[in-house]
Amino acid sequence: MAEKLVGIVMGSDSDLPVMKEAAEILEEFGVGYEIVISSAHRAPEKTAEYARQAVAKGLKVLIAGAGGAAHLPGVIAALTPLPVIGVPIRSSFMDGLDSLLSIVQMPSGIPVATVGVNSAKNAGLLALQIIGSADSEIREKMINYKQGLAEGVEKKNSLLQEKGYKGYLSK
Amino acid sequence: MAEKLVGIVMGSDSDLPVMKEAAEILEEFGVGYEIVISSAHRAPEKTAEYARQAVAKGLKVLIAGAGGAAHLPGVIAALTPLPVIGVPIRSSFMDGLDSLLSIVQMPSGIPVATVGVNSAKNAGLLALQIIGSADSEIREKMINYKQGLAEGVEKKNSLLQEKGYKGYLSK
Amino acid sequence: MAEKLVGIVMGSDSDLPVMKEAAEILEEFGVGYEIVISSAHRAPEKTAEYARQAVAKGLKVLIAGAGGAAHLPGVIAALTPLPVIGVPIRSSFMDGLDSLLSIVQMPSGIPVATVGVNSAKNAGLLALQIIGSADSEIREKMINYKQGLAEGVEKKNSLLQEKGYKGYLSK
Amino acid sequence: MAEKLVGIVMGSDSDLPVMKEAAEILEEFGVGYEIVISSAHRAPEKTAEYARQAVAKGLKVLIAGAGGAAHLPGVIAALTPLPVIGVPIRSSFMDGLDSLLSIVQMPSGIPVATVGVNSAKNAGLLALQIIGSADSEIREKMINYKQGLAEGVEKKNSLLQEKGYKGYLSK
Amino acid sequence: MAEKLVGIVMGSDSDLPVMKEAAEILEEFGVGYEIVISSAHRAPEKTAEYARQAVAKGLKVLIAGAGGAAHLPGVIAALTPLPVIGVPIRSSFMDGLDSLLSIVQMPSGIPVATVGVNSAKNAGLLALQIIGSADSEIREKMINYKQGLAEGVEKKNSLLQEKGYKGYLSK
Amino acid sequence: MAEKLVGIVMGSDSDLPVMKEAAEILEEFGVGYEIVISSAHRAPEKTAEYARQAVAKGLKVLIAGAGGAAHLPGVIAALTPLPVIGVPIRSSFMDGLDSLLSIVQMPSGIPVATVGVNSAKNAGLLALQIIGSADSEIREKMINYKQGLAEGVEKKNSLLQEKGYKGYLSK
Amino acid sequence: MAEKLVGIVMGSDSDLPVMKEAAEILEEFGVGYEIVISSAHRAPEKTAEYARQAVAKGLKVLIAGAGGAAHLPGVIAALTPLPVIGVPIRSSFMDGLDSLLSIVQMPSGIPVATVGVNSAKNAGLLALQIIGSADSEIREKMINYKQGLAEGVEKKNSLLQEKGYKGYLSK
Amino acid sequence: MAEKLVGIVMGSDSDLPVMKEAAEILEEFGVGYEIVISSAHRAPEKTAEYARQAVAKGLKVLIAGAGGAAHLPGVIAALTPLPVIGVPIRSSFMDGLDSLLSIVQMPSGIPVATVGVNSAKNAGLLALQIIGSADSEIREKMINYKQGLAEGVEKKNSLLQEKGYKGYLSK
Repeated sequence: MAEKLVGIVMGSDSDLPVMKEAAEILEEFGVGYEIVISSAHRAPEKTAEYARQAVAKGLKVLIAGAGGAAHLPGVIAALTPLPVIGVPIRSSFMDGLDSLLSIVQMPSGIPVATVGVNSAKNAGLLALQIIGSADSEIREKMINYKQGLAEGVEKKNSLLQEKGYKGYLSK
Repeated sequence: MAEKLVGIVMGSDSDLPVMKEAAEILEEFGVGYEIVISSAHRAPEKTAEYARQAVAKGLKVLIAGAGGAAHLPGVIAALTPLPVIGVPIRSSFMDGLDSLLSIVQMPSGIPVATVGVNSAKNAGLLALQIIGSADSEIREKMINYKQGLAEGVEKKNSLLQEKGYKGYLSK
Repeated sequence: MAEKLVGIVMGSDSDLPVMKEAAEILEEFGVGYEIVISSAHRAPEKTAEYARQAVAKGLKVLIAGAGGAAHLPGVIAALTPLPVIGVPIRSSFMDGLDSLLSIVQMPSGIPVATVGVNSAKNAGLLALQIIGSADSEIREKMINYKQGLAEGVEKKNSLLQEKGYKGYLSK
Repeated sequence: MAEKLVGIVMGSDSDLPVMKEAAEILEEFGVGYEIVISSAHRAPEKTAEYARQAVAKGLKVLIAGAGGAAHLPGVIAALTPLPVIGVPIRSSFMDGLDSLLSIVQMPSGIPVATVGVNSAKNAGLLALQIIGSADSEIREKMINYKQGLAEGVEKKNSLLQEKGYKGYLSK
Repeated sequence: MAEKLVGIVMGSDSDLPVMKEAAEILEEFGVGYEIVISSAHRAPEKTAEYARQAVAKGLKVLIAGAGGAAHLPGVIAALTPLPVIGVPIRSSFMDGLDSLLSIVQMPSGIPVATVGVNSAKNAGLLALQIIGSADSEIREKMINYKQGLAEGVEKKNSLLQEKGYKGYLSK
Repeated sequence: MAEKLVGIVMGSDSDLPVMKEAAEILEEFGVGYEIVISSAHRAPEKTAEYARQAVAKGLKVLIAGAGGAAHLPGVIAALTPLPVIGVPIRSSFMDGLDSLLSIVQMPSGIPVATVGVNSAKNAGLLALQIIGSADSEIREKMINYKQGLAEGVEKKNSLLQEKGYKGYLSK
Repeated sequence: MAEKLVGIVMGSDSDLPVMKEAAEILEEFGVGYEIVISSAHRAPEKTAEYARQAVAKGLKVLIAGAGGAAHLPGVIAALTPLPVIGVPIRSSFMDGLDSLLSIVQMPSGIPVATVGVNSAKNAGLLALQIIGSADSEIREKMINYKQGLAEGVEKKNSLLQEKGYKGYLSK
Repeated sequence: MAEKLVGIVMGSDSDLPVMKEAAEILEEFGVGYEIVISSAHRAPEKTAEYARQAVAKGLKVLIAGAGGAAHLPGVIAALTPLPVIGVPIRSSFMDGLDSLLSIVQMPSGIPVATVGVNSAKNAGLLALQIIGSADSEIREKMINYKQGLAEGVEKKNSLLQEKGYKGYLSK
């Protein structure tokens, strides 16, 4: 496996089906990562230790996902100089409004780079953009990836023009 | 001063004008306390240390106030077996909805006893009820306090009956 | 059964599947409790009576769960000097935002120690922390309980490291 | 003064500047009322007593105003067969969303006739419509009152047509 | 059938499964009613006509249910001196927050007596309380109905005491 | 097919089951349209090109549907002098509150004519009203359409009167 | 004055300081309009009459502004085949969330073209785009207007580049 | 001035008093930047051009601030492979809930690294963390900066311990 550049942390294994999308996109770009369960509340000492060691391990970005009173991204951000990306996990309260607000509304001095609710894939892409900020190879891959998105839209549109909406929906 | 039974912690000195109301009511009941500034994000190590030492110091209850992505009460609750009361401080976003949700919606295993937005006085009263749960002297004072509340209402109502609403409002 | 230290009250038997989690955790810690249905609105006299007798019965903490315009915890808190823990039950309106706000936003003088929506287990744990505040045996159990939480997280993480996320999710 | 048909209750004298509007409109219609301060939380016994005696006193409707975790209207509704009108008082949290939800979302069996936030005047008008439901004299006055509203709008519109919007705004 | 005292109106037949609960409770009390579909937006002329004729027909109260931008109760209230009860129907947007706000937040002069989201049964009970305000027979039935509610709660509680929560839930 | 007067654009083919309702109502009125997939974020160049060419192609109105951070309607409105109707697509966050706010709250200078969440049919009707504003034939059809709505309501009401609510619901 | 093509209606003269911005932009484009106060609730008959006569008077678009339970735009839309633009007026409840939802969430069949809270200027621009949809002269003016917006931004940016942000802010 | 590594863009000069805080912290760290006004809606062509040229100019990160239906960060993110940080500017609607949701809830493929409402300083710090991810000098400065935050808290706490809360607040 490639050198680990990204640490993906989540508060509970119930977040794994969402958070694995970050891992998948990193794999697609060939960027190494580690993936860890470590709760800010149930395992505070381990979590602090993890955050403190991130730089020494060679990680470049951290991605942290949590739901409800979601403190994990902020607690990690408090203990590392690395950029921390927060993924608000959809909770059972107002579709994760609690998760979103408790991640994004960080106090002055300790930012968390927040993505949309359950948007672990976007968290992975943001990690890649951060790495690509100083690594032109990854940046080129990102440019290609975006071109692929545009082509995907165009392909769907062509099919829609060809078949009409009724044909498209019945496919 | 009386033995310190309650620790009042806040994330920023801007919370002090609210949080002091907890101190005032404890003073009124003659219960000792300490009051501390220690941010979960800006001073994470000190905060953890504070939480870990609370039992050994003889504290019985902790009160923690914070605003925005308000992690302080939860971060402390993670590191002490004592009951932790959380005070959501009014923020500049939706009157503290962010503070409220990031304090009250704690994950299973680590409760925070949350009071209303900016309700530091109620946090102090709750601390007194907790102490009074095992201390009949404090409980008696609480019974008297509540009687006082009822009498206060009754007094205002008598004045209203005497003066009528116009007289009352122009007083 | 052990001496009853905690009273668990709910407004409707439809709240029982949630509220029983408070009972279960108290049982796990070996703390006695009673569990009661008594609506603030449909049975106001009984509810008031229950609240007034709580101290005399030897209860140390009350836990009250209710949904919608959830008045039960506040109504009880008005009539007892004991700490009252409120459990907002998930309603069919905005996942219980109504329950949460009508429990947590109590007026000055009458606090309710509010936990997260449907967090009856946390309510039980908070009751134990309150009892443990003056009872070192219960406090020791709480310390062990928390250690167990940390170990549970660590165990899951070890499995994740061993199996990778694909293996973990397909287990 | 006319026979008292309406009881206006509020939880705190800080609600009086709003709640007096209910009194004023009742006076305008010549309907007698009483106006009382009685908190559901700070004076629960008095409040219950008040609700229980309302029918015997000859009251036909009750109006109750409260803010925050606003239990007063529901607590009164639980103890009287009379219609209870609830006025959510604007609180310092989301303009009274807490007050509104804790008044309107009553459980099955115990309705509260809720009006808009701070709409004590509308509460008074609703009380009059309720009385007018069985009293044609009051109903006639209500018809006239509404005609007056329409004429008021028409008069303003005529002025606007005459002066244009610039003239109207500079008057 | 008894003389019709209550008019139940709804904007769409999709509201009927909710609104019929108002009819059912009126039947239980032996009070006559009519039930009508008439949309404020799709059938504005009929709706206006209906509101204007309500007094002449002998109706004492109107109940109107609608969802989304729910104008029906307000539009009717504008055209009758009778009390109008509004039932916010659960919509597919935030569980009917739109319905609730567009019913309860009426301007000064035109109140709507709003009940909880989907609370058509409570709307029926409120209509009965309004009629009972001037009709002691209905008021007596209401007192009995409430006693029945209290007994229902007590019965469930007795069963819970007898069986314990495990037995109760497995029944 | 008739001359194309309306352009229907959506950000993703997952919006098609909703957006097709706009197409269907245009077909019912015999007004030509085109229907296109073009994402503001994944295909920004194509989207800009589409907006810039709309006038030259003879389109009179554009309808754009998008969900989440829904920028498509605003991005198109920025690049055309034609009226743009925005359809907030229900997202998985608070039933599309994000979609609604990111469409309706446009800055001064660049309006988007916003309809309700998922209301693509209403978007089509609004497009027809806009065309009908200068085309009396379409306007006549709109008048007939509305008459049809009123008759539809009346028909359902007649059935309800005939069958009663029990019969109606069991049909 | 030019032929009146736009009708601007508002529920109360307190809306005039906001709604006049629609008039101003119409004047700027040289399009005639009328401006009227007519409440859906306080003057329902006049309002209905106004809506019914709009086509015969030669109006092409209606703009209706209202706040709170804002029914005016929908009530008008129910009675005219013309496009109706709704302006949610900022209320004292959650900055006009009530106004917004009670305007935008119209039922199927009766759309209201909703603009942002207090965005009367955008309502005027939308009316111009609607007229410009069939009138190339107005459309050309709209193209020029948008160019002016772009130039305005560019001019401010040039000043910022020249002065730096400190200079710009101290100007 | 140092080589420009960060581009700060805002939609309107009214955002400058907030957005300048990003510039100030970059200056404090000695990192070069440019600051630009360019609206996604009023100047869409310029904005697109700016985004497309960012890489070629040598920028490493972009910061974009906007309010209301805040499309600027997403529109830029669509056209560059660089990481884009979004600053939701407080609007006059629900303290910027519209700004927050229309920035953070980006679709899959196009992330925006969102910070708290009005948190331009945190946006600057996040940009520095991103640069520091590959630049150990900047990372060291970040470590020092955080130490400074901790010392700042400690200093305030010492003062509080010395003076007590009364002394502290009267200073």
